[in-house]
Amino acid sequence: MGKSPAESILSGDRKILARLLTQVENRSFEGLAALDELFPHTGKAHLIGLTGAPGTGKSSLVNQMALQYRSAANPKRVAIVAVDPSSPFTGGAVLGDRVRMRDLAGDPGVFIRSMASRGSLGGLAQTTAAVVQVFDAAGFDVILIETIGAGQTEVDIARLAHTTLVVEAPGLGDEIQAIKAGILEIADILVVNKADLPGAENTERALKGMLGLAHPVEKVFRHHGETMVVPAGEPANAALWVPPILRTIATDGTGVGELIEAIEQHAQHLRRSGDWGRRERARLEAEFEALLTETLVSKFRSNIPDIRYDEVVERMVQRTLSPWEAVKELLGG
Amino acid sequence: MGKSPAESILSGDRKILARLLTQVENRSFEGLAALDELFPHTGKAHLIGLTGAPGTGKSSLVNQMALQYRSAANPKRVAIVAVDPSSPFTGGAVLGDRVRMRDLAGDPGVFIRSMASRGSLGGLAQTTAAVVQVFDAAGFDVILIETIGAGQTEVDIARLAHTTLVVEAPGLGDEIQAIKAGILEIADILVVNKADLPGAENTERALKGMLGLAHPVEKVFRHHGETMVVPAGEPANAALWVPPILRTIATDGTGVGELIEAIEQHAQHLRRSGDWGRRERARLEAEFEALLTETLVSKFRSNIPDIRYDEVVERMVQRTLSPWEAVKELLGG
Repeated sequence: MGKSPAESILSGDRKILARLLTQVENRSFEGLAALDELFPHTGKAHLIGLTGAPGTGKSSLVNQMALQYRSAANPKRVAIVAVDPSSPFTGGAVLGDRVRMRDLAGDPGVFIRSMASRGSLGGLAQTTAAVVQVFDAAGFDVILIETIGAGQTEVDIARLAHTTLVVEAPGLGDEIQAIKAGILEIADILVVNKADLPGAENTERALKGMLGLAHPVEKVFRHHGETMVVPAGEPANAALWVPPILRTIATDGTGVGELIEAIEQHAQHLRRSGDWGRRERARLEAEFEALLTETLVSKFRSNIPDIRYDEVVERMVQRTLSPWEAVKELLGG
Repeated sequence: MGKSPAESILSGDRKILARLLTQVENRSFEGLAALDELFPHTGKAHLIGLTGAPGTGKSSLVNQMALQYRSAANPKRVAIVAVDPSSPFTGGAVLGDRVRMRDLAGDPGVFIRSMASRGSLGGLAQTTAAVVQVFDAAGFDVILIETIGAGQTEVDIARLAHTTLVVEAPGLGDEIQAIKAGILEIADILVVNKADLPGAENTERALKGMLGLAHPVEKVFRHHGETMVVPAGEPANAALWVPPILRTIATDGTGVGELIEAIEQHAQHLRRSGDWGRRERARLEAEFEALLTETLVSKFRSNIPDIRYDEVVERMVQRTLSPWEAVKELLGG
């Protein structure tokens, strides 16, 4: 008997890895079975999320980070998951891929995967979680999860990561800055990319101001919405993390080394404080609940004859049965 | 006995309307009960969705449309639902509101409601659907649903509408144009706002080009992703709708009358072709399924003791039970 797909991936077969990623995205039986087999091998990778508006140069930054992780004295294996929730119909992420391919092509320590909403069944965040699990089991040390935009889907995907980077750039206008106000709360590290452009200082100042709002003097932000009160003037203790603001120029690599260093410090902070384990638990719970929901609904639906279902929908269209009454009727009998 | 909240709304009480909208957003028992009572009175309003990137001037356009609907020979009652999925934590839509308030304040035929992700339980699209239903029952003739951005949430919300407008503006850069490629497929009408800015012609040309890609000569787009093949050179029949591209200057109202006329033509087209009914049915079905899912999950969850649930999560954290195995175990026994 030959190896199972999961065994092949654990031994580093890239072709089988690519095929399995597709199966996982399609939620095929083979994909789900392999996820079960791979699961005990997960939990080792450092998951790094990057989000920010279009035009901030996230893709170039991810590219540079991958190059620097690869050229380090102790090179890390890097997987890149580029998620584009704004492409429900076309694979917008593919273009970014081709640009990246040029620099990273042929390196067996790098694997790039693009995902758009189309073709992902059961929610993009859920599919991304499964894809990340495959890379984790396959032994990639660092998994860079890049999302375009700053909407709810991006926030959900950012929650997958141990470390979340919010990327900003000078001169994107006030309205885009305003969007960031919400997403700041999920940032572990803030990056002002394109720092050679005029206005970089203003952008940094604006972010500092917003961080000040999010974390006033007597309150220090710790982790995804949790806050800890620290009396003004007293030093924050080791369990607290104040998001640093870093400047980078992704096109020539300036500041990317410092960024990687800050990410490493964040990982150490998470392990010291116990937040690493808490984030793992929250992530697994979210994944479990999404799967549970999916299974409950498909089980219930398969027990209701189509004709009964259609009849209920027809009564809703006629306005004689409300959606809520329809649910009660189907669940009751 | 006094009137029920639903009765008060049907007779035009704005204070009760505002309170009920909050109850519906919070999914309180009172809110759900009132939705049931209001449901037979829904199905009359024309739902108009507007989406587009930040900076396109959507809020001003919505404002102008409302003013023109109100000042028509036969004025319509207008509700505005401003949804900001990119504000998970703060009410970013509130600013736009205040600007609008200046022009529309005091008009009893206009009602404005802002929604952000925070505070909406059970998904923003679902809550928006419920809020729209309340306005529909309350007798608003036109409901303008404005979303900021172009992500999956915005697409889901746009699907609520009978008529979807995609708003573009000159000079927003190539990357933002690229985002639009996906969202074009949901557009019934394309609007180039800020048409007085340099580059308006280029924007219109770019949109025409993209529409050409989406709807090549021999294919004419009809309805949310469905296409109908029409041999090149043959006239499209009455059942087909080719999205028009209109120019507006929202700040002074230029072109807004023509836009309202095009929206009216689209409504007539939907009724003639039967698509009006099909969109209603699809919308009710989606709402019903979201409610069904929510109910199934909370019912199941209440039957599982917390200690059993925690034990399963703990085994996942220890990597001895995969999320998928956990679902099977809980559903099996």
